[in-house]
Amino acid sequence: MEGGHVITIDALGTGTIERLLERAEQFAHSDRDEFRHVLRGNVMAPLFYEPSTRTRCSFEIAARRLGMDVIYFDADVSSVTKGESLWDTLQTLEAMGVNVAVLRHPRNDVYATLPGKLEMRLVNAGNGTLAHPTQALVDWLTMRQTFGTLYGLTVAIVGDVRHSRVARSNIAGLVRLGANPIVSGPDVFRDAEVECVAPYVPFEEALRDADVVMMLRIQRERLEENLAWEMDDYLHQYGLTEKRLELLKSRAIVMHPGPVNRGIELDEAVIEHDRSRIRQQVANGVYVRMAVLEYVLGRGMDREAHDQAGEVLPLR
Amino acid sequence: MEGGHVITIDALGTGTIERLLERAEQFAHSDRDEFRHVLRGNVMAPLFYEPSTRTRCSFEIAARRLGMDVIYFDADVSSVTKGESLWDTLQTLEAMGVNVAVLRHPRNDVYATLPGKLEMRLVNAGNGTLAHPTQALVDWLTMRQTFGTLYGLTVAIVGDVRHSRVARSNIAGLVRLGANPIVSGPDVFRDAEVECVAPYVPFEEALRDADVVMMLRIQRERLEENLAWEMDDYLHQYGLTEKRLELLKSRAIVMHPGPVNRGIELDEAVIEHDRSRIRQQVANGVYVRMAVLEYVLGRGMDREAHDQAGEVLPLR
Amino acid sequence: MEGGHVITIDALGTGTIERLLERAEQFAHSDRDEFRHVLRGNVMAPLFYEPSTRTRCSFEIAARRLGMDVIYFDADVSSVTKGESLWDTLQTLEAMGVNVAVLRHPRNDVYATLPGKLEMRLVNAGNGTLAHPTQALVDWLTMRQTFGTLYGLTVAIVGDVRHSRVARSNIAGLVRLGANPIVSGPDVFRDAEVECVAPYVPFEEALRDADVVMMLRIQRERLEENLAWEMDDYLHQYGLTEKRLELLKSRAIVMHPGPVNRGIELDEAVIEHDRSRIRQQVANGVYVRMAVLEYVLGRGMDREAHDQAGEVLPLR
Repeated sequence: MEGGHVITIDALGTGTIERLLERAEQFAHSDRDEFRHVLRGNVMAPLFYEPSTRTRCSFEIAARRLGMDVIYFDADVSSVTKGESLWDTLQTLEAMGVNVAVLRHPRNDVYATLPGKLEMRLVNAGNGTLAHPTQALVDWLTMRQTFGTLYGLTVAIVGDVRHSRVARSNIAGLVRLGANPIVSGPDVFRDAEVECVAPYVPFEEALRDADVVMMLRIQRERLEENLAWEMDDYLHQYGLTEKRLELLKSRAIVMHPGPVNRGIELDEAVIEHDRSRIRQQVANGVYVRMAVLEYVLGRGMDREAHDQAGEVLPLR
Repeated sequence: MEGGHVITIDALGTGTIERLLERAEQFAHSDRDEFRHVLRGNVMAPLFYEPSTRTRCSFEIAARRLGMDVIYFDADVSSVTKGESLWDTLQTLEAMGVNVAVLRHPRNDVYATLPGKLEMRLVNAGNGTLAHPTQALVDWLTMRQTFGTLYGLTVAIVGDVRHSRVARSNIAGLVRLGANPIVSGPDVFRDAEVECVAPYVPFEEALRDADVVMMLRIQRERLEENLAWEMDDYLHQYGLTEKRLELLKSRAIVMHPGPVNRGIELDEAVIEHDRSRIRQQVANGVYVRMAVLEYVLGRGMDREAHDQAGEVLPLR
Repeated sequence: MEGGHVITIDALGTGTIERLLERAEQFAHSDRDEFRHVLRGNVMAPLFYEPSTRTRCSFEIAARRLGMDVIYFDADVSSVTKGESLWDTLQTLEAMGVNVAVLRHPRNDVYATLPGKLEMRLVNAGNGTLAHPTQALVDWLTMRQTFGTLYGLTVAIVGDVRHSRVARSNIAGLVRLGANPIVSGPDVFRDAEVECVAPYVPFEEALRDADVVMMLRIQRERLEENLAWEMDDYLHQYGLTEKRLELLKSRAIVMHPGPVNRGIELDEAVIEHDRSRIRQQVANGVYVRMAVLEYVLGRGMDREAHDQAGEVLPLR
C-alpha cells in the first residue's frame, strides 16, 4: 500500500496539494452514494484528545461517504500526558486492523514523541499551536472556488496569529502556492517567526489590500485573563464589522475556520454577508477530508513522482 | 425534497398521523434488512442535550435499518444555555451534509429561539415539559394494535401530568383522533391548561373508566424534595398495584413510557402482567421512528394534500 | 435461532472451543470484506460499565467485519449499582431489536442477579475478578499458532492471580484442553482456590518450566496502597526482565493481556522481543470475537451435538 501520513503541509508536494484540491472538487459535485465502494472495509478511528465538534463530525462523514467503518474511541484525557501511552494506543489499534487514525492533540511535539514506524496512517486533525493541515486545504479549496487559482492572491490572516495552528498551516502552503499571506491583529498576538514569511500590516490597511480576509477565532479566556480587554473593545479595534467591510476590494471574500465568536471577531451581520464563505468552508471540510483519507491509503489519485512517500515517523 | 420537521403533534395533519402509524405497522412486520436501501447515503445526527438511553438507541436503530449513517455527536451540556450556539451547531451539521438532526433539549422554547430556516430536518425527541411527539405516536400505535382504532377509547393518563411532555403530546393528538383522554394523580401534579382538554378524574374512578391506563414516570427528586412523600406512599396512593388492576375493564391495557420506577408508579408484578404493553411500546419505538425519519425526508408515503408542508422555523 | 450466551469458559463444550479457534483462524486469513454478509442486519450493543479501549474496539471491529450494526451506548456508571436496572436495560435493548449485548461489568455476580431469560445473546467481556472468556480464547489461539496444539504445554501465569479474571478463565480451559497451567508471583497475590487446579511454583523455576509465560497486568493502586512496594521493586522481584528471558526454554513465548505497565510487569525491551506475542494477541482479539459473535447467533459452525445450548439465565 502506498500513501503516507498527513501531519504537516510542509511534507506534501505542491503537486499533491493541487491534486488533493482537484479531487475534493470532484467530491463536491458527486452524489452522496457514489464513492461508497472506494475505501470499503477500511477502518478509521477518531482520536480526539481535545474537544471538537466540527472537525470530528467532518472526518466521520467523509469516512462514511467512502464506505469506511468508523469506530467509537473515547480519548481519556487523563492518560494523554505521556507520549508513550499514545504510542501503545496506536500500536494496539493498528494490530486490530484500524487503517487510519485521525488525531487531535494539545501538544506541539506529539508526533516527535512517537518512537517508531506505523503501517497505519495518521492524519493530523490539529496539534497544539503548530499544524492543522486539513483546515488549510479546506481554506485553499474555498479560495480556488472563488478565484480559480491561489496564485497572486493576498490573504490577510487577522487575530491571534501567535496561537493559531490554522494560521501556521495556511502560511506554510500559501507561499508555495504563489499567494501572498499577510498578518494583522493586536501586538500581543504577533509572532516573529510567522512574520518572517507573512509580513505584519496594520489592520485597516490589510483589509484594503486583501483578496481574502481570514479572521481567526479568539479564545475568550486569553482576552479576559491576559489582556483585560472587554470583548466589545476587541470587535471595535480588531473585529470585522459591517462598516469595515466597505474597505474591502469589490471581489474580496471573508473566511473563518469556525466556530465564530459572534460579536467578537465578526459582527453578526458579517457572518451571513454575501462576502462570507464560512458555510462553504464547512461544506468543503467533508470533501477535503474525503480526498485526504483516500490519499493516505494510497488510493484515488496518482502520487507525484518526486513527492516524498508521505511523512515517516519518528519525526525527530 | 419534500418532508418537513416533526416538532409538535399539532403541526401533523390527522391523515399524516394515520399514515405514519400504518407505515410503522408495515415496518413492524418487515425483515431486518428489507428497507436498508430507503435512506441510504443520508446522515442522522443525534443531538441529546439531556440524557437518554431508550429514545437515543431507538432512533439510532431505526436510522440504520433504513440505511442511514449515524454520526457520533457529544452534546456538551455546558454550551447549551444559548439558543445561538445550538443554531450554529445545526447550521454547521447541515453544511456538512447531515440531513436529519434528532434533538432532545431541556428548554420548552428551544425551537422558538432558532432564528432561521434549515434545509436539514429536525425531529423533536423531547423538549422541556412541552412535547415528545414520537413517543405519542408510539403510544397510539400500541393502542391501535390492541383495539384496532383509537376512536372512542378512554385513555387515563396518571401521575406527574404537570411536568410531562409525554402527556401533553398524547393529549394533543388523542382528542383529534377521537379518543377521550382523562388525567389523574396527586393534586400537586395537576395542570389547569391540560385539564381544559382532558378532565381530571379521581384515581380509582379513572381506572374503572379507562380502556388504556398510561402511568407516567415520577421523578424521584420531585417526590422527595418537594412533596416530602415516602415512595411507598406514592405506590400506595397513586401507583398501579396488582390489587388495583382488578378495577380495570376486562380488555383494558397498561402502558408506561419508561423507564419505570419499580415499586413507585407500578408494582413489580404489573410490569410483566398480561395487561402490560410496556415491552411492546419499546419495540414500536423503532418502527415509529423509522416511519418518522422516512417522512421528514419526504420518502415512503404520500403526503396529505392539504397538510402543512411540515413545520417551518422560526416558530415564533 | 440456535446459539447461546458466552459467559464463562466452563459452559463451552471442548469441541465448541476447538471449533471457535479454528473459525477464528479462518478469519485471520480472510479479506477485510469477505464476511460482511454473515451477520448483516444484526445489532450489537457494547455495554461497558468499566473503562476499556482494546476490548471494546476489538468487539466493535469484529462486529462490523461481519456486517453488524453497532449502536452507541453510554453506560452511566451511576446507575449500575442495582442488577435491576441492568436487567431493565437489557430487556429494553432486546425489545428494540438488539441481538447481542457485549457486557463488561465490575461485579462477579452480575449474571446471577439477572432474574429471567433473554432472547438476545450476552457475551461476557469481563466481569469482576471472575471471568473473561474471550480473552482466554484469544490467548489459546495465540498459543496454537505457535505450537500447533495446547496439549502438553506448560503455561505459567505470573502476577496478581488473585484479582485476575484473565487467569481464572485461562485456567478453567487450559486443564480441559490438556495443558498444564501453573501460577507464580508475590504471596499477597496467591489464591488458594486457583492453586487447587494450577499449582504455585517459585518465579524463576516457573520461567524454566514454561512453554508460555503469561504476565498479568498489575494494578498500580494495589502495589502502592496495599503493598507499599516501589514499582521498581516489583520489576526487580517479579517482573520479566531481559535478563530473565535467558531462563526460558528455547521455544518459549511471552504473552500479556494488555495494556502493559512498561517497567513494572515487563521490561521495555521484552515487549518488542522475538519471544513476545503481545501484538499477535491484539490482532487475534478481532478474529476470536468474530467467531464468538457468529457462534452466539447460531451461525457459521455446527454446534457440538452434546454441547449445552449455551448458558441459560438465571445462573443461580
